[in-house]
Amino acid sequence: MAGNTFGKILQLTSFGESHGKAIGGVLEGFPAGLTVDIDFIQRELNRRRPGQSRWVSPRNESDKLEILSGVFEGVSLGTPIGFVIWNKDQHSHDYSHIKDVYRPSHADYTYEKKYGIRDYRGGGRSSARETVARVAAGAFAKILLKKFDIQILAYVKQMGDISLNIDNINITAEKIENSPLRCPDSTTTEKMIRLIEKTASEGNTLGGQISCIIKGVPSGLGEPVFDKLHADLGKAMLGINAVKGFEIGSGFSASRMKGSEHNDIMENKNGNITTRTNYSGGIQGGISNGNEIYFNVAFKPIATIMQTQETINSKGEKVNIEGKGRHDVTVLPRAVPIVEAMAALVIADHLLRNNIARID
Amino acid sequence: MAGNTFGKILQLTSFGESHGKAIGGVLEGFPAGLTVDIDFIQRELNRRRPGQSRWVSPRNESDKLEILSGVFEGVSLGTPIGFVIWNKDQHSHDYSHIKDVYRPSHADYTYEKKYGIRDYRGGGRSSARETVARVAAGAFAKILLKKFDIQILAYVKQMGDISLNIDNINITAEKIENSPLRCPDSTTTEKMIRLIEKTASEGNTLGGQISCIIKGVPSGLGEPVFDKLHADLGKAMLGINAVKGFEIGSGFSASRMKGSEHNDIMENKNGNITTRTNYSGGIQGGISNGNEIYFNVAFKPIATIMQTQETINSKGEKVNIEGKGRHDVTVLPRAVPIVEAMAALVIADHLLRNNIARID
Amino acid sequence: MAGNTFGKILQLTSFGESHGKAIGGVLEGFPAGLTVDIDFIQRELNRRRPGQSRWVSPRNESDKLEILSGVFEGVSLGTPIGFVIWNKDQHSHDYSHIKDVYRPSHADYTYEKKYGIRDYRGGGRSSARETVARVAAGAFAKILLKKFDIQILAYVKQMGDISLNIDNINITAEKIENSPLRCPDSTTTEKMIRLIEKTASEGNTLGGQISCIIKGVPSGLGEPVFDKLHADLGKAMLGINAVKGFEIGSGFSASRMKGSEHNDIMENKNGNITTRTNYSGGIQGGISNGNEIYFNVAFKPIATIMQTQETINSKGEKVNIEGKGRHDVTVLPRAVPIVEAMAALVIADHLLRNNIARID
Amino acid sequence: MAGNTFGKILQLTSFGESHGKAIGGVLEGFPAGLTVDIDFIQRELNRRRPGQSRWVSPRNESDKLEILSGVFEGVSLGTPIGFVIWNKDQHSHDYSHIKDVYRPSHADYTYEKKYGIRDYRGGGRSSARETVARVAAGAFAKILLKKFDIQILAYVKQMGDISLNIDNINITAEKIENSPLRCPDSTTTEKMIRLIEKTASEGNTLGGQISCIIKGVPSGLGEPVFDKLHADLGKAMLGINAVKGFEIGSGFSASRMKGSEHNDIMENKNGNITTRTNYSGGIQGGISNGNEIYFNVAFKPIATIMQTQETINSKGEKVNIEGKGRHDVTVLPRAVPIVEAMAALVIADHLLRNNIARID
Repeated sequence: MAGNTFGKILQLTSFGESHGKAIGGVLEGFPAGLTVDIDFIQRELNRRRPGQSRWVSPRNESDKLEILSGVFEGVSLGTPIGFVIWNKDQHSHDYSHIKDVYRPSHADYTYEKKYGIRDYRGGGRSSARETVARVAAGAFAKILLKKFDIQILAYVKQMGDISLNIDNINITAEKIENSPLRCPDSTTTEKMIRLIEKTASEGNTLGGQISCIIKGVPSGLGEPVFDKLHADLGKAMLGINAVKGFEIGSGFSASRMKGSEHNDIMENKNGNITTRTNYSGGIQGGISNGNEIYFNVAFKPIATIMQTQETINSKGEKVNIEGKGRHDVTVLPRAVPIVEAMAALVIADHLLRNNIARID
Repeated sequence: MAGNTFGKILQLTSFGESHGKAIGGVLEGFPAGLTVDIDFIQRELNRRRPGQSRWVSPRNESDKLEILSGVFEGVSLGTPIGFVIWNKDQHSHDYSHIKDVYRPSHADYTYEKKYGIRDYRGGGRSSARETVARVAAGAFAKILLKKFDIQILAYVKQMGDISLNIDNINITAEKIENSPLRCPDSTTTEKMIRLIEKTASEGNTLGGQISCIIKGVPSGLGEPVFDKLHADLGKAMLGINAVKGFEIGSGFSASRMKGSEHNDIMENKNGNITTRTNYSGGIQGGISNGNEIYFNVAFKPIATIMQTQETINSKGEKVNIEGKGRHDVTVLPRAVPIVEAMAALVIADHLLRNNIARID
Repeated sequence: MAGNTFGKILQLTSFGESHGKAIGGVLEGFPAGLTVDIDFIQRELNRRRPGQSRWVSPRNESDKLEILSGVFEGVSLGTPIGFVIWNKDQHSHDYSHIKDVYRPSHADYTYEKKYGIRDYRGGGRSSARETVARVAAGAFAKILLKKFDIQILAYVKQMGDISLNIDNINITAEKIENSPLRCPDSTTTEKMIRLIEKTASEGNTLGGQISCIIKGVPSGLGEPVFDKLHADLGKAMLGINAVKGFEIGSGFSASRMKGSEHNDIMENKNGNITTRTNYSGGIQGGISNGNEIYFNVAFKPIATIMQTQETINSKGEKVNIEGKGRHDVTVLPRAVPIVEAMAALVIADHLLRNNIARID
Repeated sequence: MAGNTFGKILQLTSFGESHGKAIGGVLEGFPAGLTVDIDFIQRELNRRRPGQSRWVSPRNESDKLEILSGVFEGVSLGTPIGFVIWNKDQHSHDYSHIKDVYRPSHADYTYEKKYGIRDYRGGGRSSARETVARVAAGAFAKILLKKFDIQILAYVKQMGDISLNIDNINITAEKIENSPLRCPDSTTTEKMIRLIEKTASEGNTLGGQISCIIKGVPSGLGEPVFDKLHADLGKAMLGINAVKGFEIGSGFSASRMKGSEHNDIMENKNGNITTRTNYSGGIQGGISNGNEIYFNVAFKPIATIMQTQETINSKGEKVNIEGKGRHDVTVLPRAVPIVEAMAALVIADHLLRNNIARID
């Protein structure tokens, strides 16, 4: 009801403010009997962690996962998985300069209006630090998906005005992770790095796009009519901080196409039912058809910039706010594991939901 | 769970197949004490109805609403509002030619894989006829929103490659409804009509985009972290048949912008807190800030075309499918009230949800 | 949220006022592929129908079920099952005498306080007529349970101060249905009939108890910690009109027992794990253990009596209310199929929920 | 879905095994702006804690609450309240003797059948230790209820065959807490103590009943038709470990009463609408009427006894299980705050739900 729970069967309830004691979550509905590889989950958290390279946030969060319940002798119990990631630098900064100031394009003002109170330290609940709970839960979902040979690969497709041309690229997890920006092409990565460095020197920030591919999804996932698979993926992505757009398959380009171009002709390739093209993005009528699922996610530029900006304070007075400290130019490389985590939660949830759709 | 329920407090449960007895729904959580203008609701249904003009579907559905419960002597009781819209042409067509054939880019194959059975007549549950229940429920939501002076205006912004330039247009309900295509500019409407006629003559279909503006939303609506207001709007739109993309505010264009360009500077205009620009689309951190909310929705072209297409049948054999009868070239004019209805359900639900966010 | 939806996976949303157009419901999550025996469902409705014998309500409701969706060519589609039962005597009575009067121990006053409005005709939404939707949905649930050889038998165990001694009785569906009071013993039935006749002659009404046995439930149904199987059964029963108490297994008598008496000793009977006694009522830790589930439900006497009663009207004035027309002395015989229906919905829901508890 | 979440708007998700790292929970939907008295919450936990007197469990759990989020500078933020209570004696016992044995009338066997795995240490998730999370969340709910002058008082009404006669007793929080058994009468307490001592000497355990009174509930709480206020109270109570029965108001005794006896005649006492009697227990048609709400809860005797019992092991072999260590004879005194906590969660949830029932 209050918006902190995601999923219907596999359900993550997230809690925590960025500068409170901890970020954490409870993952309900994770099936019993699965071997839980804690190291794998920690590696997923490490992918989201700041300070991985000089191009992403230097804030020092070790982000060590502590599992409190639901796993016994390395195996899932079927009971809720409670977990926390402790916040390290709760008291390390001085936030008095933003205590009464509404930062432009942040959630300071809207939280204040909604609740009449806000934890002003570093964004509180509205901080992207909350997504650490999603990455932890998403790693559990990935463990479930592996059992069904489902693989999720997200990557940086565009940064500012530099786009990756994927036409001749075979996208692999290795290529993505080999790039400090999680862009699976070294030439494009280089261009993006130069753009980041230039933008940093201006005290500015960048938007961009992340693409995601999901391989191995069986046909039948997704529920008519409101919980279409892509509607749930869309909601998952739009719930990530700074996301402004989502498109599945052909997406916005479909709006300029004709039916005869866009229709995916069905074929039987030696007993394997598939389609000649995949404009649908692996989903028809909201239900997966067995093809690759792919989608794009648009991120706005980071709102915290190293420039002086006008704004108002809680009294409605005009004030200037200065950029302070070191901040990210782009969230995209760190958002890649978040996109994957949310996608994993959606697919795993629908995998379980689909288990009860029919009686054979 | 099975995806036919939308909303948390104001909850629509929809039912019905396109060629079953009826499409209907139950609207739960509609507050007691509201005067229910049945004529208004019927007019909303009429806006979605086929056969409104020569450019949209000629199928004859009178779509008369029958309210079964929840309204007493013209006032809402606070109990669930059950309603049906009877299907008229249940037995009027012969669907034997598609009984065992999977139409390209329809949901025939995916429903079959999911359920092992499908109502093959006219798409069954996957038909856009189901949206009549959404429009009826959305009209109730609009009645609630009117109490709070919230107005929702959707319109056709793009059809095929013809786009409306909104820079100098004051968009009003009148202009929208005066256009047979629900595009609030007569010159653009004319161009779109010519495109539709040309496309019809080729037996082809068109995609396009619908924009939606929501005026009068108070600050504070939307829930962190998963049920952000735009995430719920996105899910609502992506759940509409043929939708492939959603963007809020600056949307995909934000991905090419810099922080200093995109940030909405806050201002106090004579006690009225607002922002100089509105790239955020009226929502920051998932919560409304009092500004106008706006978003775009991308529709793929209609999959049913008047051309011969290859496909397979349920035995996996290659077959041809012929276009038959008269069909729409574009869904967009009729999708406008559907977009509005889903938006109304989201905003009304969040209005009620926000009522319990704080104790003063 | 507004309390008209029951179940988590198999979900009934009920709607309708007693003297509105119809009572109906939407059953979501009913799996695809099940043969739907409409005659069986109608027979279940007939068991609840008034006018079955001279000892139960003579109001003439034919209670014919009309299925609107979700069933195609006799088989469930996996889509929501919408259904209605039309109200026949909407306009046949004059309710002006209770329009502004709060009947004692009815819901008139509480609905008025909650909603500020009520449908005063025959109780509106608070009428037991609403349970016709539950019986219809419960009949669908029974169809699912039959696939798993699960049988539900409810019967009248006590009426006023006449109790059935079940010690030497083998309770069968036949014995229950052969009794006009649904008490599986002819001698006790006779005594109860005499009590009903005597009470009717006094213009008074009777309370009583219904017992329910559920056979064939496999071990593993029920969810820790809040959705224990008996907690969900209890909520289901307490949601039935006039119910004041629920006990599972040993129930209230357990409160006087010692651990050594109450513990159900486990045994292996030729490979069949069972317990020597069954004080647990087939459920341990909220999860079924494979034994017979049994519970009792206490009903208060009907509030409408054929005597003059003091009360107040909506202005707070003291008024007398007279008993009018013919009314039931007891709801119990007709409540038997309602108890069964609600039990069936709970067991079927948990059967589906248990399908996703583990990965093997 | 997996049963670890309770409530609709005010929602507790509980996690933790008895001998895992911690028991904890997330409380969603707690309104912003409430002063959170941590000492009060800790005192509530202390009331549930073992070792409070020689008559209740000596296990040493300090049960110190750690709040992780949702409270800032002593005030609720409107964001989810995450909390943990660390388990102290995780490794202090040897559970090898019950690892492969199914204890009679415990949940060992049913968890094993459901999940294929269980945390055998002290009951794992099925242990009553889990209720510590409910007491913590219930204390938050009580803080909300205090704002509305709603008070909840539970007490031990019966232990074994010793019952409290409440006819001439004015029940107060002081009297309850002054009794080591939480029975608000010193003479009855004495009798109960003697019964406990005698039963302890026999290595046996006792069942009993707890009554609960809720004062100050305004009219209008509770939702038709499934979420009747007493149905939700019943589910809440039946979800507590060892509970076998629930009755509201007149309860099971109503089944022997006649309508003319049971009907609560309405009266206007100087502008205050009330009823002459209160057999309804403050609830009519599932909605509170402003009178005192009261109900009884039946507990079975503790299953762990200090006697040798037959049972089977996981191979299906007959084995004996010995009583070991020191254990409670009765759970009732410690269950009093658990009953109150669950009642508080229900009433607070319905208080918030009722906020959105009507538009005035």
